[in-house]
Amino acid sequence: MKISIVGATGYTGAELLRILASHPAAEVLYITSESQPGTGIHEIYPHLTRFYTKTLASLADLEKIALESEVIFIGLPHGHAMEVGRKATAINPQVKIIDLGADYRFKNHAIYEQWYKVEHTHKEARAVYGLTELYRSQVKDAAIIGNPGCYTTASILALAPLVKYKLVDLKSLIIDAKSGVSGAGRGLSLGSHFTEVFESVKAYNVAGHRHTPEIEAVLGEIAGQELVINFTPHLIPVARGILSTCYANLKDGVSPEAVDEAYRAAYSGEYFIRLLGRGAYPVTKNTRGTNFCDIGWHIDNRTGRIIAIAAIDNLVKGAAGQAVQNMNVIFNLDEKTGLDYAPLYP
Amino acid sequence: MKISIVGATGYTGAELLRILASHPAAEVLYITSESQPGTGIHEIYPHLTRFYTKTLASLADLEKIALESEVIFIGLPHGHAMEVGRKATAINPQVKIIDLGADYRFKNHAIYEQWYKVEHTHKEARAVYGLTELYRSQVKDAAIIGNPGCYTTASILALAPLVKYKLVDLKSLIIDAKSGVSGAGRGLSLGSHFTEVFESVKAYNVAGHRHTPEIEAVLGEIAGQELVINFTPHLIPVARGILSTCYANLKDGVSPEAVDEAYRAAYSGEYFIRLLGRGAYPVTKNTRGTNFCDIGWHIDNRTGRIIAIAAIDNLVKGAAGQAVQNMNVIFNLDEKTGLDYAPLYP
Amino acid sequence: MKISIVGATGYTGAELLRILASHPAAEVLYITSESQPGTGIHEIYPHLTRFYTKTLASLADLEKIALESEVIFIGLPHGHAMEVGRKATAINPQVKIIDLGADYRFKNHAIYEQWYKVEHTHKEARAVYGLTELYRSQVKDAAIIGNPGCYTTASILALAPLVKYKLVDLKSLIIDAKSGVSGAGRGLSLGSHFTEVFESVKAYNVAGHRHTPEIEAVLGEIAGQELVINFTPHLIPVARGILSTCYANLKDGVSPEAVDEAYRAAYSGEYFIRLLGRGAYPVTKNTRGTNFCDIGWHIDNRTGRIIAIAAIDNLVKGAAGQAVQNMNVIFNLDEKTGLDYAPLYP
Amino acid sequence: MKISIVGATGYTGAELLRILASHPAAEVLYITSESQPGTGIHEIYPHLTRFYTKTLASLADLEKIALESEVIFIGLPHGHAMEVGRKATAINPQVKIIDLGADYRFKNHAIYEQWYKVEHTHKEARAVYGLTELYRSQVKDAAIIGNPGCYTTASILALAPLVKYKLVDLKSLIIDAKSGVSGAGRGLSLGSHFTEVFESVKAYNVAGHRHTPEIEAVLGEIAGQELVINFTPHLIPVARGILSTCYANLKDGVSPEAVDEAYRAAYSGEYFIRLLGRGAYPVTKNTRGTNFCDIGWHIDNRTGRIIAIAAIDNLVKGAAGQAVQNMNVIFNLDEKTGLDYAPLYP
Repeated sequence: MKISIVGATGYTGAELLRILASHPAAEVLYITSESQPGTGIHEIYPHLTRFYTKTLASLADLEKIALESEVIFIGLPHGHAMEVGRKATAINPQVKIIDLGADYRFKNHAIYEQWYKVEHTHKEARAVYGLTELYRSQVKDAAIIGNPGCYTTASILALAPLVKYKLVDLKSLIIDAKSGVSGAGRGLSLGSHFTEVFESVKAYNVAGHRHTPEIEAVLGEIAGQELVINFTPHLIPVARGILSTCYANLKDGVSPEAVDEAYRAAYSGEYFIRLLGRGAYPVTKNTRGTNFCDIGWHIDNRTGRIIAIAAIDNLVKGAAGQAVQNMNVIFNLDEKTGLDYAPLYP
Repeated sequence: MKISIVGATGYTGAELLRILASHPAAEVLYITSESQPGTGIHEIYPHLTRFYTKTLASLADLEKIALESEVIFIGLPHGHAMEVGRKATAINPQVKIIDLGADYRFKNHAIYEQWYKVEHTHKEARAVYGLTELYRSQVKDAAIIGNPGCYTTASILALAPLVKYKLVDLKSLIIDAKSGVSGAGRGLSLGSHFTEVFESVKAYNVAGHRHTPEIEAVLGEIAGQELVINFTPHLIPVARGILSTCYANLKDGVSPEAVDEAYRAAYSGEYFIRLLGRGAYPVTKNTRGTNFCDIGWHIDNRTGRIIAIAAIDNLVKGAAGQAVQNMNVIFNLDEKTGLDYAPLYP
Repeated sequence: MKISIVGATGYTGAELLRILASHPAAEVLYITSESQPGTGIHEIYPHLTRFYTKTLASLADLEKIALESEVIFIGLPHGHAMEVGRKATAINPQVKIIDLGADYRFKNHAIYEQWYKVEHTHKEARAVYGLTELYRSQVKDAAIIGNPGCYTTASILALAPLVKYKLVDLKSLIIDAKSGVSGAGRGLSLGSHFTEVFESVKAYNVAGHRHTPEIEAVLGEIAGQELVINFTPHLIPVARGILSTCYANLKDGVSPEAVDEAYRAAYSGEYFIRLLGRGAYPVTKNTRGTNFCDIGWHIDNRTGRIIAIAAIDNLVKGAAGQAVQNMNVIFNLDEKTGLDYAPLYP
Repeated sequence: MKISIVGATGYTGAELLRILASHPAAEVLYITSESQPGTGIHEIYPHLTRFYTKTLASLADLEKIALESEVIFIGLPHGHAMEVGRKATAINPQVKIIDLGADYRFKNHAIYEQWYKVEHTHKEARAVYGLTELYRSQVKDAAIIGNPGCYTTASILALAPLVKYKLVDLKSLIIDAKSGVSGAGRGLSLGSHFTEVFESVKAYNVAGHRHTPEIEAVLGEIAGQELVINFTPHLIPVARGILSTCYANLKDGVSPEAVDEAYRAAYSGEYFIRLLGRGAYPVTKNTRGTNFCDIGWHIDNRTGRIIAIAAIDNLVKGAAGQAVQNMNVIFNLDEKTGLDYAPLYP
């Protein structure tokens, strides 16, 4: 495929370039940056030496990009991505859009506008939510993909079987998530300053993180009814990795075996979901650099709760990897193409 | 005070030595180790050079230790501490015992025996639970202190005001805690091997960690009724620090101001508890090396839950610091003596 | 190729498995462990789930292993590897041996015996030192490869052009190296205990590290005369990565351009050596997970010294990656096969 | 003493505040910040809650500050500090100035101007270089102290005895130093961005770091002759700590005992210098949070070199701690006052 990446210099863009460098069907045409157009990508990211010598283009080249590309990945801040999506599909209705930000994740634009504080300017787009395992059949025919957030991918995958098979009380859902610092991007801030983050842990955006409505929308759709959750993100001193620890009250009479069966029914054919089983502990390091999502679950008989835990690499299954997985689906490739390698451990 | 430390070569013992080195009223008499008796403590812990030149004694010296000491800190594995406590108090009924392990933490020995799988051999001891802020008046007159666990200290301090003032549904308590690796001690294990822990995060002992019954017992006592909780510990790649993120359903009609007032009522006179307030985020690094417990809380109107968060240094307020705080209370010293210095940041 | 790995449960073995999982010509037949035979490799290393389901064999299976394999990688402690090499080649003279330890690295067995304190028991082996870029033509026809040490790979690659083109005073060579903890392996020790290593740095084995004679032997061979060096290893709190900072006095009249030319002449056709150039700074993270060696150099006119710096991933170019590179050379595959992917950054 | 800190919001300022909070003779009057005047220091640094409630003043208050203070610590960028020093001493000739930057470190202003690219505007100041152990008698009577740099403190202390007792070839000095990220300050930069620094190591400013001429000037003064050195700083992923690994050629006939004796002669009465001895390995963690400098040395008979290693906490002995040590000397206090506590380990 002929591929362009609009907004390629953030960590998500760099991760796309890393993955696509080994993707047998990928040809990267254009990569853009508004802050450093004209610079070689290997100057910004020397680790990509030997793989790319491209010079960064800019959005001024969008017409050319849209016309020549079969698929455009967008790594821009929310609000900007939908503008690119709108224009690019107008220029070339055949081009596929995979946006790694939030602009195309919400069917209900009002929720998007409420949480993101901007007007949605591409409401006519028939975007599909790109959590591949749950929306594969829609992804197949999609023109525009809203690629899921990192926290949401891990959290939804952990909880979806419980919700789908109606095993838990929907009012009881609590997600306590821990993320590495790469999730905050490459932009400078005191919150990502080494000495502030190192040897420390904290929660942030409690009851206000924007991945909350995304999780609610998807789980609510699966449940067939609206629901609200508690989602608490934490920053831990690692570069990559998300662990989502999810709590729910089991409905009366739900047996451990019924829970196990729900996970198997939901995921047994899924290559990228590794079900570790009941009593097992996902470890973020076991997924490092890969598109895998490891899931384990625990039942506490004393309290009647299930604790479901998912681990992913936030930059891969939580961003660039899932984006490539979606591209593979759209273009009828084996879904594993370019993504089938073992984690970097230790 | 004349002080001895039985089991001094673990991290808790080393931390006691660090703190006592600057305690104006402390005189360390004996320190013991069963694995390395006869060795100088500065050979095992070179950082203590200039502060200690003592050679390690062993339990064979217990009679001498008990007779000459005014207070004995015990840093032994559970099961062994109560034996030392029993013998030492028999030898010298005046000596005060502060055990940093679990043996003296439970009023209900059956719960201890059930979770720790050993028979309690010192049931006649009238031990006091040494969470100083909650049991100060009993600590004052105690002969034996069961010093609280690290997770329990943070978790109980975060939740106690909510339970005490009956603001939350007691069936809804969930504690999601994150700990540094020093909590696992200095004993070698793959779980504490650098390359396994670094750049990773995982949960462990879900629904089975031994701090669970300790938290339940204390919160239950405060509530005046039995309760069960979910407690999920996580290992994060830092040396020190615990963050306890606690979830509870607010009872109908409880206002944010009532919550704020409960925290103030519970802790406003407490030097070592720093109430950051509603909407604030405790950060473990802000407590590093000190006896402080930082607490913040958040109310989610959408779900009706409160999220209370506490941060401590697990080796100080979660172990050695609180032990010294208890010693100060017992010996009628200013509670801050030897503990009143600023955190090491960054 | 039909491949077996003897001693597969250390980090080097796990890294071989990771790399071979994506190698198009590799078929892993047997993997052995003396400590855990009969266990599934995915139980020891869950990150390998989806890639291996093999059960660990043991050295008791050596006859079968030697007969059926085309190449055997050895990941055993020194002293044991040469025994396996001797027996395996006796059983099957066609099988190729690639030893990742020290047993086959020294042409001069006396030096080996002096530094490693064991008798060499396979002196008749005509082993080749597997620093591919320097010994490629010999590797091509080798039956037994002594795969270089991690420190030695980085250090020799940084210094070889300077020595080869006689630009530096051979009496002035000093190597100050920094390594991640994975270099110490998966065996438990206080020196690899998380809390001891984290937030700290130290030197070790000064003037006594066993990679010293290995570097001396190779650089001496290149120079055509014996030489001694200072080599100082340091442990830094990362999992992967070696940085070798190498000092040498430039001979009188050597121009910066002559230095640049030496590096180009030595390495310009080498895919895995990325010459960053004069004034550039190699960063270990830029090589993470890959077989690249990044080299930069600096000339200090004030002191007349050159400072040459090399960065590698100790488990890849410093161990398993270079071993696979050598295998590719031996079997006439493109040297990059299975190794041509981008580093995991950040 | 009445103390003010001009430029208090960097890490050095915060560390001064931490130390002074436990200094029995210290009274902090004014603390300033040009970027955040009017803000409470505990808002910027919540870890200081319970110790300071002060609101930040600014340089507009310098007259008041100079008149009311007995000592002013300056934590400003170079070029600015000497302006404050000049004005403050003009306002109040009695006030003592301790500058933690470079402005007052050089007797030879031409060297300062050459390396720092600014004109020196306070040349008439009779400043003393505040490496306490080497310049104590001058510090005692100094009005203005140029407090040493972090790298320079560790490096000079490691090499000074060898230079003083003429044991080494002065042309052979090489310093390979490793520093934590706090040395780069709290200002945001990609070089201190968590995800860039973590799990990585690199050299920087090779042959050009500004601590080079500082080390040369002091060692040259000790030697009684000019000298040039190689100094190579490295960034390692820790918050605090510097390890200086120093190489020198021993003169012919210098015995190991003569080296040992030189270290003892130089430092045996020094409380803050802990001589670990020949063959010992300083560890930065063993000095964490304290004013100690740990020194060990190794002699390599094969090459005739000595490798001397020093470890410090860059923010304490490398900055704020030594500044307080100097204040103690100036005001005739016990030099250990406020600095005599054990390191935070682990």
